[in-house]
Amino acid sequence: MNDRAVDRAAWENRDLEVGYDVPAEIGDLIEDIQTPALIIDLDAFERNCDRMRNFVETMGLRLRAHAKTHKSADIALYQTTRGGACGVCCQKVSEADALIRAGVTDILISNQVWGEKKMDRLARLAKKARVIVCVDDAANVSDLSRIMTKNDVVLEVLVEIDCGAARCGTGPGIPAVELAKQIAASPNLEFAGIQAYNGLAQHIIDGEERRSAIAASTAKAEKTVSLLRSAGLECKIVGGAGTGTFNLEGTSGVYNELQCGSYIFMDTHYGMVRGEDGERIGGFENSLFVLTTIMSRPEPGRAVCDAGLKAHSIDSGLPTVFDRTELAFVDASDEHGSINDPEATLLLGEKLKLVPGHCDPTCNLYDWFVAVRDGKVEALWPVTARGKLF
Amino acid sequence: MNDRAVDRAAWENRDLEVGYDVPAEIGDLIEDIQTPALIIDLDAFERNCDRMRNFVETMGLRLRAHAKTHKSADIALYQTTRGGACGVCCQKVSEADALIRAGVTDILISNQVWGEKKMDRLARLAKKARVIVCVDDAANVSDLSRIMTKNDVVLEVLVEIDCGAARCGTGPGIPAVELAKQIAASPNLEFAGIQAYNGLAQHIIDGEERRSAIAASTAKAEKTVSLLRSAGLECKIVGGAGTGTFNLEGTSGVYNELQCGSYIFMDTHYGMVRGEDGERIGGFENSLFVLTTIMSRPEPGRAVCDAGLKAHSIDSGLPTVFDRTELAFVDASDEHGSINDPEATLLLGEKLKLVPGHCDPTCNLYDWFVAVRDGKVEALWPVTARGKLF
Repeated sequence: MNDRAVDRAAWENRDLEVGYDVPAEIGDLIEDIQTPALIIDLDAFERNCDRMRNFVETMGLRLRAHAKTHKSADIALYQTTRGGACGVCCQKVSEADALIRAGVTDILISNQVWGEKKMDRLARLAKKARVIVCVDDAANVSDLSRIMTKNDVVLEVLVEIDCGAARCGTGPGIPAVELAKQIAASPNLEFAGIQAYNGLAQHIIDGEERRSAIAASTAKAEKTVSLLRSAGLECKIVGGAGTGTFNLEGTSGVYNELQCGSYIFMDTHYGMVRGEDGERIGGFENSLFVLTTIMSRPEPGRAVCDAGLKAHSIDSGLPTVFDRTELAFVDASDEHGSINDPEATLLLGEKLKLVPGHCDPTCNLYDWFVAVRDGKVEALWPVTARGKLF
Repeated sequence: MNDRAVDRAAWENRDLEVGYDVPAEIGDLIEDIQTPALIIDLDAFERNCDRMRNFVETMGLRLRAHAKTHKSADIALYQTTRGGACGVCCQKVSEADALIRAGVTDILISNQVWGEKKMDRLARLAKKARVIVCVDDAANVSDLSRIMTKNDVVLEVLVEIDCGAARCGTGPGIPAVELAKQIAASPNLEFAGIQAYNGLAQHIIDGEERRSAIAASTAKAEKTVSLLRSAGLECKIVGGAGTGTFNLEGTSGVYNELQCGSYIFMDTHYGMVRGEDGERIGGFENSLFVLTTIMSRPEPGRAVCDAGLKAHSIDSGLPTVFDRTELAFVDASDEHGSINDPEATLLLGEKLKLVPGHCDPTCNLYDWFVAVRDGKVEALWPVTARGKLF
């Protein structure tokens, strides 16, 4: 072992090495997937998509599915074909770019964009696809108009109002109308409506409290739409809603585009947000899992798996072990998860499916979705916009 | 805007688009870096490396710097050349592979490896570089021996003992000796010593409590080394320690390899772990920052920046705003950070440096480190092993 001269042939055989970094091959059994891996139960995923499509079709609404959840072109294209979506949302210009390059043709950046470089990129994208952006500030509107004019392209713009989440957004009512007027009067910008998303309300566990939060948001959106109409400004898009509240905005008569993202996958936190009937919201099932392997069992009752903080995001709580209620995921460090196993049934090398605490930042940790049906790998979908932060 | 025919020339000009995904160019001013971005203050980084090198040289110890912090071949090679390290650690086979392909020649996987595919890959790596691995289970030792024999390569193996962190590891003392004997008797395995890392102790804020935890760990390591010696098994490596406790294991006379990782960067949590003198541990400075831009200022006193849960990990707490004690980062959602600005000084478009709550999982979110000196970009270092989870 002292003379470890590099084996040049092996060294240069990089393709094989890189092949190891793909978690599975088509046709592999679940047991053969390298872990930790992000897997999708395709049957559950497709049923979730059907449930949402049925809802928007019944209500006569548009679904603009949020791609910040999955960052995958394959999933975005599934949503806009079989999933009943008119287009997708994303949060960053770089995300939009990655998705548009992969074939997405109608995209709302449901966020503010600051900085000349990002606005130039936005202008380039608006030449390739339908691109819509949000604003909440007059100076931002001026910058966007200047840069779209320079690039000879027209950009659709929504006024984002703060309808209760206390994050971004101008005040509803008069301040929103002022901003809309500025947009309408700005060269190379087209006023397209309002963005009225209450992100905080999505995760309110108590059903009555959630309903009341969305009633207040909807009233602000409705008042703003009405004032805009009086000012001669029609809202082509009244957008908002997420997985936790889509049935409330969706039946309000005010919103015409729903921006749900997590419904396709669900996660531990959304599993706690229940409908009026006490059932899982929208009937959505867990279709996203972190597949993990037991790699140490230091003493009876305590096991360690290979999925830690770099394999799932704990910002909204720890994951749960799917279909194994006797097991509890109790702690995560960077590359390890600690599991309590009071019946001492876990075996070394055994695989478990974890339901992540929060699906969006979890997906952003992976290069691949491993799509599984009937115990076998059916597809590998790249996380197209993973790490696209700008 | 109704006819959005794709501009084929622009569409196919992909290089330019991809160029946008690099956060900066060499020579750019900090103000021109696209955000959110992970930046390194090179002067502070180099001083941190010097401090650790001076300590191990003075104590006559080896530093095996932990690459799970940075996952960067450039930084690993800096550590093993100018930084006084004999090699590096990592946690996963895929991480080791990425770093070895990029030129690292001496690497400890400070973790258990389960599964035939991973062990085959480990064997291939052991033909290219010095590779060491940890075990805590007899069946794992048998598997490793079988697969190394099949691949005709000898692997160095450390017995991991649980010295107080209650994660992986066999019991110290007799159980460790039994496992070491099995390794020594196994074809194509070489017993190389013990792994005795107390991860829990690194983050104990109280200095006396931390010292006491490491005194207990060290006693377990010492007893194990002594029993192994009585059994005729010398420990070439007695490894452990992290940034929070390196001075304790380093002056114990028991450990000969320190595995610190975070010392190069530091973070908000390690900033709270103080030495006996009440000063920052080891004198290490913050050299790692998430550069962020203010993108909304909905009302005086409240601002929103573009760095949320996908731009830094909050598992160990929220980030702080560097050098701006009047500002408080109070909440993070997926793509937004909320900042309290009681003096209402923040401007739209202004850039801030955040000290992340936890450096390791934060680095894993990025494709690039932007290395900065004197206000200018001096280098771009890829996060070589980002997302290498297997």
